[in-house]
Amino acid sequence: MKSLQCDCQHLLENVVGNKIAMNPLDPGEFRRQGHMVVDFLAKYYENIEKYPVLSQDEEPMEAILDDVHQHIFPGLTHWQSPNFFAYYQTNTSTAAILGEMLCAGFNVAGFNWVSSPAATELESLVMDWLGKMLDLPRPFLPFGNGGGVIEGNTSEAIICTLTAARDRVLRKLGHNSIAKLVVYGSDQTNCSFQKAARVVGIDPRNFRALKTTRSTLFGLSPDSLEKAIRLDINAGLIPLYLCATVGTTSCAAVDPLEPLCKVASKFSMWIHVDAAYAGASCICPEYRKFINGVEFADSFSFNAHKWLLTPLDCCCLWVKDPNALVNSLSTDPEYLKNEATESKQVIDYADWQLSLSRRFRALKLWLVLKSHGVQNLRSHIRNHCRLAKLFEELVEEDPQFEVVFPINFALVCFRIRPSGVAGMSNGHADNEHGEAWKLNEVNRLNAQLLHAINASGRVFMSHTTVGGVYVLRFAVGATLVTEKHVIMAWKVVQEHANSLLSMPASEQHSA
Amino acid sequence: MKSLQCDCQHLLENVVGNKIAMNPLDPGEFRRQGHMVVDFLAKYYENIEKYPVLSQDEEPMEAILDDVHQHIFPGLTHWQSPNFFAYYQTNTSTAAILGEMLCAGFNVAGFNWVSSPAATELESLVMDWLGKMLDLPRPFLPFGNGGGVIEGNTSEAIICTLTAARDRVLRKLGHNSIAKLVVYGSDQTNCSFQKAARVVGIDPRNFRALKTTRSTLFGLSPDSLEKAIRLDINAGLIPLYLCATVGTTSCAAVDPLEPLCKVASKFSMWIHVDAAYAGASCICPEYRKFINGVEFADSFSFNAHKWLLTPLDCCCLWVKDPNALVNSLSTDPEYLKNEATESKQVIDYADWQLSLSRRFRALKLWLVLKSHGVQNLRSHIRNHCRLAKLFEELVEEDPQFEVVFPINFALVCFRIRPSGVAGMSNGHADNEHGEAWKLNEVNRLNAQLLHAINASGRVFMSHTTVGGVYVLRFAVGATLVTEKHVIMAWKVVQEHANSLLSMPASEQHSA
Repeated sequence: MKSLQCDCQHLLENVVGNKIAMNPLDPGEFRRQGHMVVDFLAKYYENIEKYPVLSQDEEPMEAILDDVHQHIFPGLTHWQSPNFFAYYQTNTSTAAILGEMLCAGFNVAGFNWVSSPAATELESLVMDWLGKMLDLPRPFLPFGNGGGVIEGNTSEAIICTLTAARDRVLRKLGHNSIAKLVVYGSDQTNCSFQKAARVVGIDPRNFRALKTTRSTLFGLSPDSLEKAIRLDINAGLIPLYLCATVGTTSCAAVDPLEPLCKVASKFSMWIHVDAAYAGASCICPEYRKFINGVEFADSFSFNAHKWLLTPLDCCCLWVKDPNALVNSLSTDPEYLKNEATESKQVIDYADWQLSLSRRFRALKLWLVLKSHGVQNLRSHIRNHCRLAKLFEELVEEDPQFEVVFPINFALVCFRIRPSGVAGMSNGHADNEHGEAWKLNEVNRLNAQLLHAINASGRVFMSHTTVGGVYVLRFAVGATLVTEKHVIMAWKVVQEHANSLLSMPASEQHSA
Repeated sequence: MKSLQCDCQHLLENVVGNKIAMNPLDPGEFRRQGHMVVDFLAKYYENIEKYPVLSQDEEPMEAILDDVHQHIFPGLTHWQSPNFFAYYQTNTSTAAILGEMLCAGFNVAGFNWVSSPAATELESLVMDWLGKMLDLPRPFLPFGNGGGVIEGNTSEAIICTLTAARDRVLRKLGHNSIAKLVVYGSDQTNCSFQKAARVVGIDPRNFRALKTTRSTLFGLSPDSLEKAIRLDINAGLIPLYLCATVGTTSCAAVDPLEPLCKVASKFSMWIHVDAAYAGASCICPEYRKFINGVEFADSFSFNAHKWLLTPLDCCCLWVKDPNALVNSLSTDPEYLKNEATESKQVIDYADWQLSLSRRFRALKLWLVLKSHGVQNLRSHIRNHCRLAKLFEELVEEDPQFEVVFPINFALVCFRIRPSGVAGMSNGHADNEHGEAWKLNEVNRLNAQLLHAINASGRVFMSHTTVGGVYVLRFAVGATLVTEKHVIMAWKVVQEHANSLLSMPASEQHSA
């Protein structure tokens, strides 16, 4: 950590010579420098395929820190590269980048209606448009007394709704009951749910990550939910909240909303549907079925900052009962009192979120919707799903590989088949120990494959383990991705697999 | 709400004709449209003084919603206007806007080190620079085993540290003790503290907003803190967390850190110093004294997005014990496992904050520090403080007015003096009822004055009530503000005051 010891005075004073005239918002300078940055970014997108997609930086920390101010690029993982297939994409677009420029340029802190009426009104409008594009049930929209709000991220959406749900119960039972509240998800639910539950004071022992299996394609089983709830009730605990997922983070599994909601409703629980990744696809009628049953839930969220061409941060949350949020999250200090708020005719979005101040995030989403229109946005989603199918076909044509789960959206989970691994079909007794050994070896080989692929810098994929099986994740989602990139990515996979599989078995296992 | 009923399909399909070619990141289009937005924003700043600073929109909601997509401007409150003196400013700069452009352009979701090494490294570097600029004690910086992180806002900083503090205690005492935990602030502490305490599951009855008085200039008294803690302990409760404020939201009061910390430390409480607004001033040696005593605290935060030329969102938090955050906020799902994390040689900032994904916020702060250098940033702060002094002098020269509190930073709290109000000096018995009547009348007249000033659209100020006294708040903080704007603002105040005070007393009281 030596380079951190550099004298910051010295560093900062060094650049005083380069300083712009001390009007930090001089319009002339803004114009000159702004055009420079636009050109810089345009060139970045022209050349983005030339950069190794996963940062290849392997310098020691000291060297990175010494150089970072001159060398941000080499340390950047190029999330917008068409060769980025890891995690889930957070894709972006010209319209949205311009929206962020406007947001930073106006820099209004729209915490309540009066602090910037347009920020609030535009957010309501955009969330209503989007709610209709998703064909959300009427009770989530203003006409059905519901409403939408842009949160920073899914964690915030869950913390807010969980707090609302918790307080609704504690107001009846008294605060001491907080230690008895139980929340439910599956072992596939995103880790942000566990974190959110911890933050709002749920006893970590009362967090249920119910086991899923291949038999339900890793969706949460309504029976196991009901069984867990009844066990908890018998133990004197109080079921509070169910987080159901449409498009899990690992393998894009879908929890069956309708039967799950029927179970949870029996116990008056708050039901949240987290469609962080997959929600965007529901603007296409053919994908809408995946959120069937959402009408029985209390809240629904998805991240426009994943698959809807809008950069971080933009989590869209709808609730049936905005007052539940306001009852838990509103504050009313004297310094913010104003006639508009007192009239109760306006929304103060600060009361629907964790923080007081908020960025004008609606602007970028509005620009995205206006620039592209619903048909183009649907094409954008369908194109990615089509490219995922293409990759699936390529995998299936190669007998060394297998696609591990059926594809719901634009994620392909695949691996080298056990039969493709040397030593798998001979020399080991077909007993339990032998099976475990096989699984471990196959997993290890697939992990080696991923490591080799990513070390090439040509494409970037990630992995997960579901039901004990290690799989490579190929998530199509970059704005700039085309057939060419998918085919190239598959070639990279094959090349590294061939080289790995052609090694003698002894080297494979120790490589 | 009629206009919300517009068919969104129709609206969206209407713009399909205008759609850009469906490459949402086409470099040519990015260049063309980007330059347009830069010119648009440059022009916005050239003309910003011509817009009424507080949105004058008084159309009915229906009309606003109908028009908002064509008329965002009329509904915008121009926070960057040099005539904006309300709340506390969230000022911005060319450097920071360019930083946001780069952030949206790269759009990396740097949740852990490996997902974008440069994002993490740059954040550590920038927070270290800034920590040194603030002369933070060594234990807050990496060499003292502390560290800094950029959170979205103060609420998040408090929720994170409060969760860490809570879990540290609950790990010892068991989760059932959550209902016994007590948190302490003053009646001047920002409302985000109360909200944060509610979110993390503190019993609302265990939130102490200790009364402050004029005798301590509305700073929290260590004696009253100690008394409250001892009462709580005697009642079987557990003191957990103190939020001390440097520069309160109402009147920029300063809690005396050193004696407060000495009290809280006796009870092993977590001490957070919230310098959301005033912290930025501590880069000037002459203001650094206001955070003397911070060496005894556990965490310190301030918002670069208020007074340090950086747009929302950018809350800088330092903690002495990052592991306390990590122990509460880390998650370790399979799909994020990677060698860098396992080496424990890198920071995964997701474990220091609420959400998993995060924007590359360090970029804008880095550009601000690099572009301006510490001397210019100090001049920027000093200039605002000087302009606040100028306004104070103008107020004090007018016998109808008074400055209500001594100025610590760049906020002037002032009002029409009681003696300036008709009917104050005659006809009413000098008894308690008479005093209350007087106070109400003076408050009401000052509220009328503020309303008239803001309705002019020429300047925008806000108000607060401290110790029962209604005051107008004149917060200097816009990047573009100069002496001319301050003098003009004072003229607007005087004009409206003169017109109000020249009305017959009967009309004054009923106006």
